[in-house]
Amino acid sequence: MTDILSRSIAELTRSDISPMELVQAAFAQIGRCEPQLNAFISLFHEESLRRAREIEAEMRRGENPGPLSGIPIAVKDIIHLAGTETTCGAKNAGSAVRNSAIDAAVIKRLKAAGAIIIGKTNLHEHAFGVTTENPHFGVTRNPWHTAHVPGGSSGGSGAAVAARFCAGALGTDTGGSVRIPASLCGIVGLKPTFGRISVHGVVELAQSLDCIGPMCRTAQDIAILMNVLTNDVPPVSDYTADIGKPIAGMKVGLHKAHFFDNLDAEVEAAVEKAMQMLEELGVEFIEVSMPSVPDAHAAALTILMAEAAHFHREQLLARREDYGADVRELLEAGLNLSALDYVTAVRARDAARREFVEAFQKVDVLLTPANPIPAPPISIGMESSNELRPRLTQETRIFNLLGLPAISVPCGFTEAGLPIGMQLAGAWWDEKRLIHIADAYQNATGWHRRLPPGP
Amino acid sequence: MTDILSRSIAELTRSDISPMELVQAAFAQIGRCEPQLNAFISLFHEESLRRAREIEAEMRRGENPGPLSGIPIAVKDIIHLAGTETTCGAKNAGSAVRNSAIDAAVIKRLKAAGAIIIGKTNLHEHAFGVTTENPHFGVTRNPWHTAHVPGGSSGGSGAAVAARFCAGALGTDTGGSVRIPASLCGIVGLKPTFGRISVHGVVELAQSLDCIGPMCRTAQDIAILMNVLTNDVPPVSDYTADIGKPIAGMKVGLHKAHFFDNLDAEVEAAVEKAMQMLEELGVEFIEVSMPSVPDAHAAALTILMAEAAHFHREQLLARREDYGADVRELLEAGLNLSALDYVTAVRARDAARREFVEAFQKVDVLLTPANPIPAPPISIGMESSNELRPRLTQETRIFNLLGLPAISVPCGFTEAGLPIGMQLAGAWWDEKRLIHIADAYQNATGWHRRLPPGP
Repeated sequence: MTDILSRSIAELTRSDISPMELVQAAFAQIGRCEPQLNAFISLFHEESLRRAREIEAEMRRGENPGPLSGIPIAVKDIIHLAGTETTCGAKNAGSAVRNSAIDAAVIKRLKAAGAIIIGKTNLHEHAFGVTTENPHFGVTRNPWHTAHVPGGSSGGSGAAVAARFCAGALGTDTGGSVRIPASLCGIVGLKPTFGRISVHGVVELAQSLDCIGPMCRTAQDIAILMNVLTNDVPPVSDYTADIGKPIAGMKVGLHKAHFFDNLDAEVEAAVEKAMQMLEELGVEFIEVSMPSVPDAHAAALTILMAEAAHFHREQLLARREDYGADVRELLEAGLNLSALDYVTAVRARDAARREFVEAFQKVDVLLTPANPIPAPPISIGMESSNELRPRLTQETRIFNLLGLPAISVPCGFTEAGLPIGMQLAGAWWDEKRLIHIADAYQNATGWHRRLPPGP
Repeated sequence: MTDILSRSIAELTRSDISPMELVQAAFAQIGRCEPQLNAFISLFHEESLRRAREIEAEMRRGENPGPLSGIPIAVKDIIHLAGTETTCGAKNAGSAVRNSAIDAAVIKRLKAAGAIIIGKTNLHEHAFGVTTENPHFGVTRNPWHTAHVPGGSSGGSGAAVAARFCAGALGTDTGGSVRIPASLCGIVGLKPTFGRISVHGVVELAQSLDCIGPMCRTAQDIAILMNVLTNDVPPVSDYTADIGKPIAGMKVGLHKAHFFDNLDAEVEAAVEKAMQMLEELGVEFIEVSMPSVPDAHAAALTILMAEAAHFHREQLLARREDYGADVRELLEAGLNLSALDYVTAVRARDAARREFVEAFQKVDVLLTPANPIPAPPISIGMESSNELRPRLTQETRIFNLLGLPAISVPCGFTEAGLPIGMQLAGAWWDEKRLIHIADAYQNATGWHRRLPPGP
């Protein structure tokens, strides 16, 4: 069964495996491992079987089954799915949850493509944290080592894909919430350019930073999902077009300050080895200088906190006790920010944007670690997220501030068996190139083919 | 002499009047009226004569004299002119004044076009007010009635052009500071699209709202100045291209709520008459609905106050007493705004932008009064600016928030002889159309040919 489930979407859609077989395999695997991992807030077993039967009937009638026909997909429980509650991982999400009677735009697209939504995944409360230690729905555990967090906030989606519960999942990324769990769970996660994928029907965290991102085991699968998810109708760009093609001659930028500061030794070694591999594949490395990065990193958190506090202000005042301690602390700090703090952040963003525009005239992509450390242990407590935040968002946050696309790709494991990821960030709307390089790297290495320990 | 000075730039550049004659006439008029009006902070009599001689010598040598050769121009004293102090209308403008050793980008362009900068004009302190009642340099008086303010913040520029001290002037407009004094002084003032004219070398008030704008007696002269001032090198668009052409078939939008609220009866009558004239010229009026206007108007002030407080924060803390009471009050209120206020403003801006984008799909321009009231009397005291602000910016502020171009054109006088203006606002980058309609209206009416009472 695990063999079926380890196949990529690209492989599954080319195979003879039926939707029923796939869904049954997925739920069998969920039955085995979910009690330990806690990746889901809700599961739709009966509905998924019903959809699989429907799709099989459509196939028998010769109807066009869609590019994701019968593929089990999980979605973060901050995305509206008609007929289900959107918890946002929160107690009494209340007025934060509007329009939960509708399908989000991305859900409509997934359904239209034939995907089977098997469940809604756990997340850091209100998507506002980096560990998925959720006080209301429990912690999600890292499939590679259940004493460790999966990262967050899309930790349930990361764990579900890593644990072979599904072939792909949707997360949301406001400061790293797709890329952090992707890298800590050993899968691929893409935060697209701001605005590339409609966030209609997704409960907001910070409107000017929120992105939806696909999480899969291969860059090729990310490309397949991007073709389904993007607003470009008909697609301006076929994201799979460069899959399998060489990457020789690509210019990869390195900004050593900030992104390479205080790396865990095993992370540093793995990323260096990944760079050697890319060099063997013909990539040229170029150092770039962007002095505004630290200010911009700080600015991203200011804007996130202010916008999140703006969204939550009424509920926070009405029922403060419903929030977990870490999220409450952040929201209250957001309430206390001044307009001057915000203006300072806007200026830092403008300065950084100028530097990144210039950098992307010299290089095709930027390479950084995806995380400075591997997945931290759960034991440090439910309120650890705020302490870990500066570390776990060190590599990711700035790309939300600037609206730039960035992908996290597995590039090794620690001795203890925890995944390590590298990040490739591109110019605005240049997702295809990120997918292209990530795919070439995965084909040359195959870290994504390793299986996490079963139950 | 007044006859020479009443000619437009278009007329002067076609005439045989020599630069020396013009400069001498200008300074004779300044000698007669400036003691009463106080339009200038500094005057460059000797330097202007020297430049006029130089230009005459160039002309004799047959050198290309430039499109503004020998034309006397005044500039608001917040724009850097090498070799002069930039006071910003403030006591000890201090660190606000950076790079005053350089020429601002617009000064370079004016000089290269052959213009003669005759002086730097008075303004509301730090450009942050609507009356030009300046506690450090005295009030500027309205040439049409010296007991009244000229409006602000570019009041000195408005008064100088109206009083025939010069053929044109530069102002800056962050919430209406070109259009308010233009309309209250009976001249034409254009706030271009945000970013159209470089603000390099201009001391900021609120970076995301600041625009430089030309102030002249005719729309045609505005076009000539725009050709000189714009960043489009070579000009993408000749702003004079539609001068003198008919405007039949133009679609003019009216948003009656907000812009037509609480109008002074004489203003209302004059604007209605102007609309009748435009109808005779073949224009079609279309009502548009933009429910977000009031919120967006409030948002513009929030963003202005926050950005201005951000710029002034250090000086305000170090030497609070150097600021006039009205500006200090605003800046201190800006310091106390919260990030939530700012986020609320950003959301209102986004909502309004969507509505205006839609409106400009139905209409070519929007018509509003330029001011709900004529120029208020000076007698109500030096601190009246903050009380008058809501009234005097009612028509103008929202266009700064959205970055849209807007022009103020004379459309009548009150019984007491105070000028009345109407405003035309256009879609982004559509200045040429505003100039086109304003020119057609001026040709059909001729309000700008009336002379203010002399000394």
